[in-house]
Amino acid sequence: MAEAWPDLAGRLVAGVHVLPVRVYFEDTDAGGVVYHARYLAFCERARSDMLRLMGIHQSRMGELGFVVRRMACEFLKPARLDDLLEVETRFRDWSGARLEMNQLVRRGAEVLFQADVTIAVIDLRGRPRRLPAKLAALFSGVTES
Amino acid sequence: MAEAWPDLAGRLVAGVHVLPVRVYFEDTDAGGVVYHARYLAFCERARSDMLRLMGIHQSRMGELGFVVRRMACEFLKPARLDDLLEVETRFRDWSGARLEMNQLVRRGAEVLFQADVTIAVIDLRGRPRRLPAKLAALFSGVTES
Amino acid sequence: MAEAWPDLAGRLVAGVHVLPVRVYFEDTDAGGVVYHARYLAFCERARSDMLRLMGIHQSRMGELGFVVRRMACEFLKPARLDDLLEVETRFRDWSGARLEMNQLVRRGAEVLFQADVTIAVIDLRGRPRRLPAKLAALFSGVTES
Amino acid sequence: MAEAWPDLAGRLVAGVHVLPVRVYFEDTDAGGVVYHARYLAFCERARSDMLRLMGIHQSRMGELGFVVRRMACEFLKPARLDDLLEVETRFRDWSGARLEMNQLVRRGAEVLFQADVTIAVIDLRGRPRRLPAKLAALFSGVTES
Repeated sequence: MAEAWPDLAGRLVAGVHVLPVRVYFEDTDAGGVVYHARYLAFCERARSDMLRLMGIHQSRMGELGFVVRRMACEFLKPARLDDLLEVETRFRDWSGARLEMNQLVRRGAEVLFQADVTIAVIDLRGRPRRLPAKLAALFSGVTES
Repeated sequence: MAEAWPDLAGRLVAGVHVLPVRVYFEDTDAGGVVYHARYLAFCERARSDMLRLMGIHQSRMGELGFVVRRMACEFLKPARLDDLLEVETRFRDWSGARLEMNQLVRRGAEVLFQADVTIAVIDLRGRPRRLPAKLAALFSGVTES
Repeated sequence: MAEAWPDLAGRLVAGVHVLPVRVYFEDTDAGGVVYHARYLAFCERARSDMLRLMGIHQSRMGELGFVVRRMACEFLKPARLDDLLEVETRFRDWSGARLEMNQLVRRGAEVLFQADVTIAVIDLRGRPRRLPAKLAALFSGVTES
Repeated sequence: MAEAWPDLAGRLVAGVHVLPVRVYFEDTDAGGVVYHARYLAFCERARSDMLRLMGIHQSRMGELGFVVRRMACEFLKPARLDDLLEVETRFRDWSGARLEMNQLVRRGAEVLFQADVTIAVIDLRGRPRRLPAKLAALFSGVTES
């Protein structure tokens, strides 16, 4: 079925992942714009889909998981109902148990939101874990040098 | 800490549970009103809190769980930002593995939303299960005759 | 930019609209499945995108709007993280100020959710309005006979 | 009706606002914990209720509005279903068109989330506006010296 919708997880080209996001009523608030916390959800969708295109499915990761530790967010301009947005995700760096990313949400060339994101690798009890070598190799392939 | 906020789970009087719900930006959409699916979340909060006041904590139910099977919803009038709503929950009936409830969302005397709700009791694999006698006795106590 | 993502609004073929929906963490709950109210949001996305493919953009409808009046929902089976779902939308009937639809959410051939939906046409004050002739003609074209 | 639920907007004592927040299914995800973006919504509820207790109702602010410009978030420990959380909000500083706050989410004494938040005052077109003298006086009263 996934083949029927080839772009559903966005595209990963030269280490940069781009995910299209349509703004629906659920994303907006009575101010007429996208509710601020929705940008974090858009970014989480993008990270999940970038992992998916790298062959990593979070529902099959067994005892390992990724969690957000830190997110420094700038809300630059408002998005509105029916807007077509694109989320760009870039790996900046990774160490034993942490991944550093930058994510931004654009409407065309106009950047509406951007965030520096720190992701931790944890086990089922929430304790930090080293990134397994296989995943580390995948992340190296998409990290900016 | 719960004692510090005595009304946080609403009140259960004569078999009717009432939960106050404030409308925040997150609940509204670009139409200036509460997004329709939010009423279902308000009703789920109310069911959880009614159970809580009956001594049933869903996070400690072990291998049993409650799921919504059917919900016939009427969206009568819009709620708006800053509104103070009240969710009323009444048990209508229960059988071996099903609970029937009616829920409505009011702003003062004005009914904005109402739903007939069927809840099923399931085990961890999602299979229907009979309501344990201890829970059945609790539900009998709050069911309209 | 919309041309870059040709399937973003799904597909409308022979009066049936199909929208793909990926299940992300935001859609799931601690029960490990999709939170029940999310199906209503998935259906709203599908209705918005079906209208979009018919040339109707809700953010440009001026003083008219669509609101959900009634929704009879059946939650048949749970969806889970990473699932690829498809929402099918069919117009059943329309009259002066009302549209009747059926919507279902599938995972492959397996139906997880289905709902009969009544939509009303309202003006900015929330009063019922007749469907303008131009829209009526569009809806006639996609209504099952 | 608000009098019937005296603590619904939390409490504002000596410049610190505390809002109780119960964790419901809607707030959790398939990881079994609170979805990260929900903390931002909890913080927005707290800011709205703190303003409410100061006599400022955002739905009646006419042509002025508050928007989040920046939010530096740390996700320290996970919250879970049924947890009773408390959101603490403190004003740090304010200038012509900006408010600086610190917000944290606790479970008892344990801090789960904390954020430094910058709020901007804008008009209906999204342009920065100076805080009116009346509001400025209110904010001075709750800002830490």
